[in-house]
Amino acid sequence: MLLSKLVCERTKEAPQDAKIKSHVLLSRAGFIKQVAGGIYSMTPPCQRMSLKIQNIIREEMDAVDGQEVLMPVVMPREMWDESGRYSSIGQEMARFKDRSGHDMLLGMTHEEAAVHLSRYIVSSHTQLPFMIYQIQTKFRDEARSRGGLIRVREFTMKDAYSFHSSQEDLDKYYKRVYDAYYRIFRRIGLKNFIDFKSDTGMMGGSVAHEFMLVTEAGEDTLVFCDGCDYRANMEVAECVRSAPKRADRALELVDTGAAKTIEEVCKLLGITPDCTIKAVVYAVKGDADKIIIAFVRGDLEVNEAKLKKTVKLNVAPYEGGVSDSVVCGNIGPKDLSDKVIAVYDKSLIDCVDMVVGANKEGYHYRGFNVARDLQGATFSDIAKVKDGDVCPVCGGKLRLENGIEIGNIFQLGTKYSAAMGMSVHAEDGTSFAPIMGCYGIGVGRAIASVAEESGDDKGLVLPVTIAPWQLHLCALRTDKAELKDAADKLYNELVRAGVDVLYDDRDCAAGIKFNDADLMGMPIRAVISPRTLEAGEIEVKLRKGGDAFRVSIDSAIEQINSIIAQLKEEIERDL
Amino acid sequence: MLLSKLVCERTKEAPQDAKIKSHVLLSRAGFIKQVAGGIYSMTPPCQRMSLKIQNIIREEMDAVDGQEVLMPVVMPREMWDESGRYSSIGQEMARFKDRSGHDMLLGMTHEEAAVHLSRYIVSSHTQLPFMIYQIQTKFRDEARSRGGLIRVREFTMKDAYSFHSSQEDLDKYYKRVYDAYYRIFRRIGLKNFIDFKSDTGMMGGSVAHEFMLVTEAGEDTLVFCDGCDYRANMEVAECVRSAPKRADRALELVDTGAAKTIEEVCKLLGITPDCTIKAVVYAVKGDADKIIIAFVRGDLEVNEAKLKKTVKLNVAPYEGGVSDSVVCGNIGPKDLSDKVIAVYDKSLIDCVDMVVGANKEGYHYRGFNVARDLQGATFSDIAKVKDGDVCPVCGGKLRLENGIEIGNIFQLGTKYSAAMGMSVHAEDGTSFAPIMGCYGIGVGRAIASVAEESGDDKGLVLPVTIAPWQLHLCALRTDKAELKDAADKLYNELVRAGVDVLYDDRDCAAGIKFNDADLMGMPIRAVISPRTLEAGEIEVKLRKGGDAFRVSIDSAIEQINSIIAQLKEEIERDL
Repeated sequence: MLLSKLVCERTKEAPQDAKIKSHVLLSRAGFIKQVAGGIYSMTPPCQRMSLKIQNIIREEMDAVDGQEVLMPVVMPREMWDESGRYSSIGQEMARFKDRSGHDMLLGMTHEEAAVHLSRYIVSSHTQLPFMIYQIQTKFRDEARSRGGLIRVREFTMKDAYSFHSSQEDLDKYYKRVYDAYYRIFRRIGLKNFIDFKSDTGMMGGSVAHEFMLVTEAGEDTLVFCDGCDYRANMEVAECVRSAPKRADRALELVDTGAAKTIEEVCKLLGITPDCTIKAVVYAVKGDADKIIIAFVRGDLEVNEAKLKKTVKLNVAPYEGGVSDSVVCGNIGPKDLSDKVIAVYDKSLIDCVDMVVGANKEGYHYRGFNVARDLQGATFSDIAKVKDGDVCPVCGGKLRLENGIEIGNIFQLGTKYSAAMGMSVHAEDGTSFAPIMGCYGIGVGRAIASVAEESGDDKGLVLPVTIAPWQLHLCALRTDKAELKDAADKLYNELVRAGVDVLYDDRDCAAGIKFNDADLMGMPIRAVISPRTLEAGEIEVKLRKGGDAFRVSIDSAIEQINSIIAQLKEEIERDL
Repeated sequence: MLLSKLVCERTKEAPQDAKIKSHVLLSRAGFIKQVAGGIYSMTPPCQRMSLKIQNIIREEMDAVDGQEVLMPVVMPREMWDESGRYSSIGQEMARFKDRSGHDMLLGMTHEEAAVHLSRYIVSSHTQLPFMIYQIQTKFRDEARSRGGLIRVREFTMKDAYSFHSSQEDLDKYYKRVYDAYYRIFRRIGLKNFIDFKSDTGMMGGSVAHEFMLVTEAGEDTLVFCDGCDYRANMEVAECVRSAPKRADRALELVDTGAAKTIEEVCKLLGITPDCTIKAVVYAVKGDADKIIIAFVRGDLEVNEAKLKKTVKLNVAPYEGGVSDSVVCGNIGPKDLSDKVIAVYDKSLIDCVDMVVGANKEGYHYRGFNVARDLQGATFSDIAKVKDGDVCPVCGGKLRLENGIEIGNIFQLGTKYSAAMGMSVHAEDGTSFAPIMGCYGIGVGRAIASVAEESGDDKGLVLPVTIAPWQLHLCALRTDKAELKDAADKLYNELVRAGVDVLYDDRDCAAGIKFNDADLMGMPIRAVISPRTLEAGEIEVKLRKGGDAFRVSIDSAIEQINSIIAQLKEEIERDL
């Protein structure tokens, strides 16, 4: 490819809203172009990279006996009514009426379509297990798309669905896909990633893992133990907490005036937040009358994912006006209105001498003793783990890091197959609904993850396995006919030898060429200049670092191929 | 691939609505599964075929310097307001509001997105020409989806957009894509296809070609001359017509009572339809008050596409109640209400002694002489060409055939680039809007076309270049361990040698296996049975016909590879 003809514009500045490295670099290198919030076009280098990633995914899916299919982007409501998700999924699913007034939707995931496709094809247990997958466009109307390709509304995704006759069989297959995911991410060139047991969320099911790239720009919080293997996504992370040791005292009503927040109350009474009980008000989505008060120790935060799991309701921070049932800023466990649902965190167990709201404007209680004053309450784990908390496995110290989810795998059980009436004959003549697994990887997210992990202050640094071109050939002084001829000749020979070459044939300054090469990030850069040509050589340098070195033009193809092989071998060594 | 595990069910019966061969065969072979009207899932064999076709398209697009990109399926209204098509395109474009109430649409074509992507990247004439293309999902809310994959609502399409600094440059490039299209369709294995100059329709622009597969099941009508190279789509086909030679006579009002249709009037008066003038009532879309009367000779039909072009309005057959302005069944050119627009076909020139409606309930005129009684009228070409009409080029006989559009190419001019403010610096310092071309191929349509053209009464007959598997290996009596072992061994060896094999490993009757092999249509069938095994042989047969022959198992790989090479060579010979 001639750089002079490439539809891709490099810029010095990134878009104003680009805050994280991958967004900045992919924009500046001209790989992506925003069309609307969370919707991008991909220019030729980015699409080339996307196709290479898709092929790696395809190879690994085929290697675990996956069968590639294509299910529709636009689906009719009826199919999603069968699973119940037409109603249970909110605004993130785009819906429209077709010309005949029929309710249609844009698929954000394809469990329903996978069962629809399979249920009349597969009728015997002998056809199990099988896995179908597709690489296809998804649309999710995210409220907060952000970060370039990190969280978008439209994206290319590999989604796979497996069907099994027993939990044991699913377990076995699930492990094969788990291993395939490690191979995929390694082959893409990612390094610092790891899997986490995760919450199954709206997918239903029980066991699930997400694969996380550990990186500052991540929007997920990950919890690691420094002492053992324990690790968990913040959504499900646990820790051991003991109540602060303090003497018990009598309950006493105190006038706290306008002090409402934990900070204000602590300041007024001269205490620390761990001596208070924090009340956070939640509303239940779709049921405006239901109010939930989550109580945690004042130095902790409520973990919404855990709270949802505990109350088995879809809750969100209360945003309505003041409710009659609660006195905001003075909410406490004692004399709380019975119109609200109170949920108590485990951190409150054994706490004494606590300051709590008195459910009375301007007043708190001091000396609240949970065992004495909150008899009969049950305690759940609804608080977020903090940096430095105690590991639930080994007692070591927990550490928080950020991560980007690069893939996920779920055990779905029979949620979809049973709801949609998929029935398979067993050996003994009975019939059953197959047990399913599902497995996703976002291609654009993978691109952003590579940019995030490997990029440096000069630009992208792309792994040889997915780089749009393996070699970036810079010809300096193309205004000189002799140089231009030699460079053209070398380019053509390299292409004929099967090397992916991006050839900077422009008549412009060396500095511009080098900056563009650094920004665009091809793994190998070769320079041919009047000086190197005189010596019958080119200068070669790896984008990831190391010194430049000279190679004779006659041996260029051989040497470049050998470097490519070596770079591939570095990536694929541990597979 | 083991047939026993393949997610694909063959059936004896096709769906009730399957009327044409490709729909019947693709359904019966289990290649497609309907999800909603005009929306299908593709099972593994169909998706494999789709990917092979996509790769052929990709290779040919790259060979004409195409750069693959990816533009979004979901686009914001604003982009389509720039071109004016948000309003001008009707219900066939799906629209929805996103969660923030923004108007979004599903792309049915991507001229706007292509200009959006390019307009800030390309600023100098030195970057022209260039072509970007994508292979992506499109949604068009067709009123009448039909014929399986022939006319669907959701489909995978290759769409390409080229940008040029002069008409000459576009002409030159257009010819390259035209040639590439011939190569693509030949490589896919299509035979009886041909290009037609066509109407540019909603795309704007001037020159356009469509590539048509000539086949009975086609929904387009194609006009060929038996005497010369003249050919045209019915929408634009012309012919030469002369008025029937008859003696003039005086105009006379006759009571025709309840006779309204041409047939009834002819019967009543004992004349032939070519002695009458037919009036067809049209309404203008979006302007209920505007009525157009198209007059053609009674033996001809109105060509709606030509009528639209003539009146430069979007017309449709009048479906409202009776209008005050016309007397349906008695409409004629004389004393016609001036509230309607009359359009006269060229076939009426020089006609004498015609029967026409009198615009009076129950009456017609006889003896209408167009030159005498319709002075000052202008005549346009708005009639359909009929089988046997006279060729406008050589005077030969025209012949009608049906066709399926398998691809199209358009010269767009600056319609989109100018409307969307794309501006490129010329050499002389001025700036200009690039001249564009666009080029489409539907992948599913190509699959259906192959099925339509090559399929026979036993099933699909797939070209080796796109067949999901090159070889269909049937093992008979897999209940015998010796046979099963030999067949498994052969299958594994073939796969290792790089042959695409579908292996029927099931324990079922030979007849079932042979029927499935015929139905699924892989180009080569190999059978291993106890009898052939005894002789150390397999039996090989080509799906397209010819006798079966024996090949030794030891030379099977070599022989199969040689047949594959020969089949490829037959397809690619004339490229």
